[in-house]
Amino acid sequence: MANVSCVFCSIVAGDAPSSVVHEDDVSLAFMDLAPVSDGHTLIVPKAHYAGLEALPEDIGAHLWTVAHRIGRAVRRTPLRCEGVSLTLADGEAAGQDVFHVHLHVFPRYPGDSYRVHADWRQRERPDLDATAALVRAALLG
Amino acid sequence: MANVSCVFCSIVAGDAPSSVVHEDDVSLAFMDLAPVSDGHTLIVPKAHYAGLEALPEDIGAHLWTVAHRIGRAVRRTPLRCEGVSLTLADGEAAGQDVFHVHLHVFPRYPGDSYRVHADWRQRERPDLDATAALVRAALLG
Repeated sequence: MANVSCVFCSIVAGDAPSSVVHEDDVSLAFMDLAPVSDGHTLIVPKAHYAGLEALPEDIGAHLWTVAHRIGRAVRRTPLRCEGVSLTLADGEAAGQDVFHVHLHVFPRYPGDSYRVHADWRQRERPDLDATAALVRAALLG
Repeated sequence: MANVSCVFCSIVAGDAPSSVVHEDDVSLAFMDLAPVSDGHTLIVPKAHYAGLEALPEDIGAHLWTVAHRIGRAVRRTPLRCEGVSLTLADGEAAGQDVFHVHLHVFPRYPGDSYRVHADWRQRERPDLDATAALVRAALLG
């Protein structure tokens, strides 16, 4: 199940240090070594799955539930964050750096360093309908 | 359940147009009106929950499962995306704009407009351990 060259597999195995927030049979949550903000946590499956294609749905839902709990919990800490961002990058084009599925929980603070830049451009309904049809077909296929 | 001033409640009720990708008893997935990239989809609970604190865990896990399926499906469309970003913003400090929980699925393309800037600065283990202890305590509390 483990990938010998994977840093998250090493953490799960206890061969690399980590500051653990939560552990159960299928998941481990620990502090990101280079946190974007105080409390930045990663949730990973204990087994090695490179990305969303390989990840079983039930394990994905479990990772999300752990992230949901941590996202609520950080708001109750003395960290005084005022929001939470949850993100997952799947694939190199999405900025995935470690190819072992991981879900980020970033506590957010006014004026923190996390910024998203994107071109949010309104599209015409026929274009949106055409794209929706493609995705619907792929969901059914 | 519905909030009369909420744009996502209007979409769920059918009072505002949307390009639907998936619908079931508790969730609706539709094209973002101002997509960051082709195929940018939002998944929302049909009932109005402002954020993660109010959202029941089982509904959260279901939204994630729908996002997981859509994230895999878009890779099978002719859109030819090469990755997927899944994000959720909880709270104004996280950039949440519509206060009805919504999970983004962004198909990602090399050279697309989506950029994350953040200060990923490595921290010392004692700092990480101290923060982990705060989050662990809040999870148990």
